Amino acid sequence: MKILVLNPNTTASMTETIGVAARAAAGPGTTVVARTSSMGPVSIEGYYDEAFAVPGVITAAVEAEAQGFAALIVACFDDTGVEAARCRVAIPVIGICEAALLAASPLAKRIAVVTTLGRAIVPMTELVHRYGFAERVKVYAADIPVLALEDPASDARARIEAEITRALDGGAEAICLGCAGMADLADRLQETFGVPVIDGVSAAVTVAEGLARLGRRTSKRGTYAPAIPKPYVGQLAAFAPG
Amino acid sequence: MKILVLNPNTTASMTETIGVAARAAAGPGTTVVARTSSMGPVSIEGYYDEAFAVPGVITAAVEAEAQGFAALIVACFDDTGVEAARCRVAIPVIGICEAALLAASPLAKRIAVVTTLGRAIVPMTELVHRYGFAERVKVYAADIPVLALEDPASDARARIEAEITRALDGGAEAICLGCAGMADLADRLQETFGVPVIDGVSAAVTVAEGLARLGRRTSKRGTYAPAIPKPYVGQLAAFAPG
Amino acid sequence: MKILVLNPNTTASMTETIGVAARAAAGPGTTVVARTSSMGPVSIEGYYDEAFAVPGVITAAVEAEAQGFAALIVACFDDTGVEAARCRVAIPVIGICEAALLAASPLAKRIAVVTTLGRAIVPMTELVHRYGFAERVKVYAADIPVLALEDPASDARARIEAEITRALDGGAEAICLGCAGMADLADRLQETFGVPVIDGVSAAVTVAEGLARLGRRTSKRGTYAPAIPKPYVGQLAAFAPG
Amino acid sequence: MKILVLNPNTTASMTETIGVAARAAAGPGTTVVARTSSMGPVSIEGYYDEAFAVPGVITAAVEAEAQGFAALIVACFDDTGVEAARCRVAIPVIGICEAALLAASPLAKRIAVVTTLGRAIVPMTELVHRYGFAERVKVYAADIPVLALEDPASDARARIEAEITRALDGGAEAICLGCAGMADLADRLQETFGVPVIDGVSAAVTVAEGLARLGRRTSKRGTYAPAIPKPYVGQLAAFAPG
Amino acid sequence: MKILVLNPNTTASMTETIGVAARAAAGPGTTVVARTSSMGPVSIEGYYDEAFAVPGVITAAVEAEAQGFAALIVACFDDTGVEAARCRVAIPVIGICEAALLAASPLAKRIAVVTTLGRAIVPMTELVHRYGFAERVKVYAADIPVLALEDPASDARARIEAEITRALDGGAEAICLGCAGMADLADRLQETFGVPVIDGVSAAVTVAEGLARLGRRTSKRGTYAPAIPKPYVGQLAAFAPG
Amino acid sequence: MKILVLNPNTTASMTETIGVAARAAAGPGTTVVARTSSMGPVSIEGYYDEAFAVPGVITAAVEAEAQGFAALIVACFDDTGVEAARCRVAIPVIGICEAALLAASPLAKRIAVVTTLGRAIVPMTELVHRYGFAERVKVYAADIPVLALEDPASDARARIEAEITRALDGGAEAICLGCAGMADLADRLQETFGVPVIDGVSAAVTVAEGLARLGRRTSKRGTYAPAIPKPYVGQLAAFAPG
Repeated sequence: MKILVLNPNTTASMTETIGVAARAAAGPGTTVVARTSSMGPVSIEGYYDEAFAVPGVITAAVEAEAQGFAALIVACFDDTGVEAARCRVAIPVIGICEAALLAASPLAKRIAVVTTLGRAIVPMTELVHRYGFAERVKVYAADIPVLALEDPASDARARIEAEITRALDGGAEAICLGCAGMADLADRLQETFGVPVIDGVSAAVTVAEGLARLGRRTSKRGTYAPAIPKPYVGQLAAFAPG
Repeated sequence: MKILVLNPNTTASMTETIGVAARAAAGPGTTVVARTSSMGPVSIEGYYDEAFAVPGVITAAVEAEAQGFAALIVACFDDTGVEAARCRVAIPVIGICEAALLAASPLAKRIAVVTTLGRAIVPMTELVHRYGFAERVKVYAADIPVLALEDPASDARARIEAEITRALDGGAEAICLGCAGMADLADRLQETFGVPVIDGVSAAVTVAEGLARLGRRTSKRGTYAPAIPKPYVGQLAAFAPG
Repeated sequence: MKILVLNPNTTASMTETIGVAARAAAGPGTTVVARTSSMGPVSIEGYYDEAFAVPGVITAAVEAEAQGFAALIVACFDDTGVEAARCRVAIPVIGICEAALLAASPLAKRIAVVTTLGRAIVPMTELVHRYGFAERVKVYAADIPVLALEDPASDARARIEAEITRALDGGAEAICLGCAGMADLADRLQETFGVPVIDGVSAAVTVAEGLARLGRRTSKRGTYAPAIPKPYVGQLAAFAPG
Repeated sequence: MKILVLNPNTTASMTETIGVAARAAAGPGTTVVARTSSMGPVSIEGYYDEAFAVPGVITAAVEAEAQGFAALIVACFDDTGVEAARCRVAIPVIGICEAALLAASPLAKRIAVVTTLGRAIVPMTELVHRYGFAERVKVYAADIPVLALEDPASDARARIEAEITRALDGGAEAICLGCAGMADLADRLQETFGVPVIDGVSAAVTVAEGLARLGRRTSKRGTYAPAIPKPYVGQLAAFAPG
Repeated sequence: MKILVLNPNTTASMTETIGVAARAAAGPGTTVVARTSSMGPVSIEGYYDEAFAVPGVITAAVEAEAQGFAALIVACFDDTGVEAARCRVAIPVIGICEAALLAASPLAKRIAVVTTLGRAIVPMTELVHRYGFAERVKVYAADIPVLALEDPASDARARIEAEITRALDGGAEAICLGCAGMADLADRLQETFGVPVIDGVSAAVTVAEGLARLGRRTSKRGTYAPAIPKPYVGQLAAFAPG
Repeated sequence: MKILVLNPNTTASMTETIGVAARAAAGPGTTVVARTSSMGPVSIEGYYDEAFAVPGVITAAVEAEAQGFAALIVACFDDTGVEAARCRVAIPVIGICEAALLAASPLAKRIAVVTTLGRAIVPMTELVHRYGFAERVKVYAADIPVLALEDPASDARARIEAEITRALDGGAEAICLGCAGMADLADRLQETFGVPVIDGVSAAVTVAEGLARLGRRTSKRGTYAPAIPKPYVGQLAAFAPG
């Protein structure tokens, strides 16, 4: 089975980190392809960037389905474009926020998401609530830009550790790393803190494999029914569903 | 004061209907300009279309601020792109779903939203919940495509009336019309049913005027802080905040 | 159009402050009349005072409708008597708590209400939840009696500023001033803190004007159906609906 | 121990029904006094009547405490004036809605409240939610005026039975009778339907006795702190807390 | 009337403390019998111990009903086995957590539960939410093992007082003691802190007496319908409902 | 990797059905062992049976960890004993209700659980709410005893299909089969109804494999901290953690 991991942050070095984590999580017989989105912001930080990452996610979803991938993983903790993509293709589309929460759910009652910038706390909290984790999850921000995670000279890891400490003191029993760019940190942090530390990219690989193995795909009844064919005008005309 | 009403459905006849309703709601001294979005789907029906309507909303928001408009109204009941636009400009950005709920709130306890297609029920319900109306609002669908509202030969009005009847039987005390294309129906339906019937476009005009008069604009602290300057790659590069 | 602003706190100097704020928010062609309630406590602080402010609110509502006012504003952040008044008259009845929240809603995700006494925190929190803002609003108390706001020698303003600082540190993105007696502080506080600061009295004027312009009045179906004619006995007999 | 049951509906025949039910529920050594409120509507149906029943409740609370009653029961299913009274006296003040829910809670998971007029559904639902029963309780209305319960010729009992049948079909496992005037029906209805049928008046007597026996009274810290002494003006001046 | 209080913690000295508190709360004509469970952990601390306390609770429930007790009280603040027992017998089965919350409900808006070990915070919080007190109750842990409460040399009381102080500072208006082993502390703590301090054992006695006096028993419709006769295999075969 | 699937219903034919479904879902290199619980009810129907199924679940959990299984699956849709087992072992313990919801979450917004007896609706609804699916899931009962699923002559399948039809009409977009005994029906029902139909046993296998592959185990901080060594008395003494 082949799984496509799309990095909607258009930064190739980050895609590499993501790809390494994703491949490490894959089971025997699974091929993981990591791809950088063809358009959009170099990093996704808040509602605005998110909006412009969606066309790239859709492009990848359509390609993934055409190229026989069993599932698409969207490697941004805002789960950017995931719902739109589910209306366009039938293969499972997995966001890494949802996947991280699904993986943490059987392991701990109280879960902290540690993300990058403070401005993401409200959007991510709303997302977490939509997934049903309002009473179980609290979102923390380490106050680092996404791309600082790519810079070995930054103090990103120290800041993340400080937030994890704060979260554990506040009752957290497990940690979800709230950015695809943190994918390479999960194992070391789990060792350091002695609680489950979940990277959403790896978690999403296991969710995608599971759904593919079960032969379950996106429901085409109701909310995710296929987008209705109609004209799109202007610069985005090529995205019209047909 | 000047208010821009953007129709993110790229259908000019619908923009006309919207403009008439908006101008009728404006107070003395207010100029309303209704504009069709420069790009995107001809009608917005579900998550997928929504995603491709956003770039047109952002374009309009930037223009509105540059051209001295006091506020931007986004005339689609999904409040498409409203949160992204709030990160890009400081003038108030008002979605017609939020505006309709705000107007109905002091008039009735139980409110029905009557929208077009069934697939919109879940996304609209989630939106309504985010605005805090989970216990007060139920969403009904008349099962008509958006553009049928533009077609005098369709049975759209009869279907809308049937859903309103069903909603009132179920305890609704006021009705919000869940599509910008219904803007011209509100007064007649209110007369027919004897309960408040709210059109979101008109409601949004009064909200926009109110905020402008009060001198209150989008908070730039936290969630709606200005989008961070960074490169965008590919087809959407021109949208990079600078 | 004429709007009546009733101060249910029977303190005339406070009514003057309220009137100034209300008139400043009114649009062209709108006349605002500010009136002190004819009966009840000199200030409303908690459930007990609230209960005895209601008959004065009803008296004012009946008068307002008879005298051709387009709407009644109840200038107390507990929204005292608002629901009862809506059962007695058909013109919109607007409480300043609801109005402040409606105005803040499109401007910020996280909102702090800063009120007077600590004992009001729970009742105001319950009110805010009824309006649907449970996840978005936190109530703070500056620990000052209502009438201290009328006393230039008090440290009321300093205490309010201290609470606003605490609220912003806690994630608030906009402030609602939780007492009609603070109406004159909003502009200066907005300037000081650089976030939207909403006074409910001014906000209510714009809400009332908007509803009047739209021709939408209280729903008479269901909860706010007209009070049923019946005898009232004893001291309150004159209030019997009939 | 002496317990005062106040009927805030100023209808003496109803007070008699209430008194009989209350005395039947009292334990050995408990004296129950049933009293008709000295002022207010002859029956309480919706927000408006409720507001004018409160002064009578407060009058009774002050008298009850002065006359050595161990607790006050407010015999109206809207729990009219209960929170205000708790700010004025220290003896427990028990509303019959809260008492009925407390009694039903250990006996059944899903509970129906069957009340009189449809207009009470929303206010009673909000009350039930404030008491924490949002997921467990649904409110039904038999569509009968309160005073029809006093009229042997009315079809009140048949309508109540029809609603109970509907509620049981909908999953209810126990019934709370949603009006003090139904106090005499509980035993017979329990026999008819074979599920617990709770009358709030009787339930409140056991709650009041229990709290009195435990020596627990209203908390005077926070929300129910004593009303602050201050002048009240006009017709209600005598109610000023001193 | 006879009431059975079962201590599911199989520690006899604790049962004595519980019995004293229970008898002190009983009204005239009520006989309280306190009994130690015949099997299970010496103290219940978390999900695991809870599971093994249930068979002892069921045994006691069956005996209680056979021996003519009017109600069973389960004296553990996790309300261990209460729902299972309600499926096996018709007499009311009262857990002390539910009873404490029911007693505190009319006395205060914001309530703190002060329990023993930190690991109980989440399970107890979930229990409290199921009872509908999500917005009103916060659970605190004094970080003492249950059996330290039996040891006069421990610093248990000082730690409990420290948590109560913290809870009051955080807005609590009443305290529920979150362990049956604290039953003897309630009066002294109430005197010390000047707010209602509720012991669940005493509260449960008044709830049980009340329900018995009202003649209301567990609903046998729906959730608590009688357990279906069927074989049980292995060590637990004797528990098969017959 | 080896995964143990425990059937806490002590009925061997049901264990066989479960084993077949579990093995079909396992990936390459995974060995699934299906085992019937050593004690407890032959079928689990409601709170009472559930309580007596727990000791068998714990026994299996301890054995599974000792025998080198990577995870334990508890094959009963009540997730019986799952939380207790998580306190006793460190390997992941997966209930099939939680697993089914986790699998359905990325595939559909509105989900129906179709279970056996009506008495399970409330307990299962409470469980589903604890997992965060209050707004997304509705529980339906086909009104068949668990063991009827083992009887080819029963009309179980027809009744299940009727409930699925009802659920789809009510807006469901995917189905979770609410009993381990339905494991063999999922594929055929998915084919019949054209929406995702999830069997919790198969889903749990993929969740268990995923967590094992990621190297994430139950958090031992907080709620699931190891059960504290202490004596257990009576018949259950052998279960004392130590």
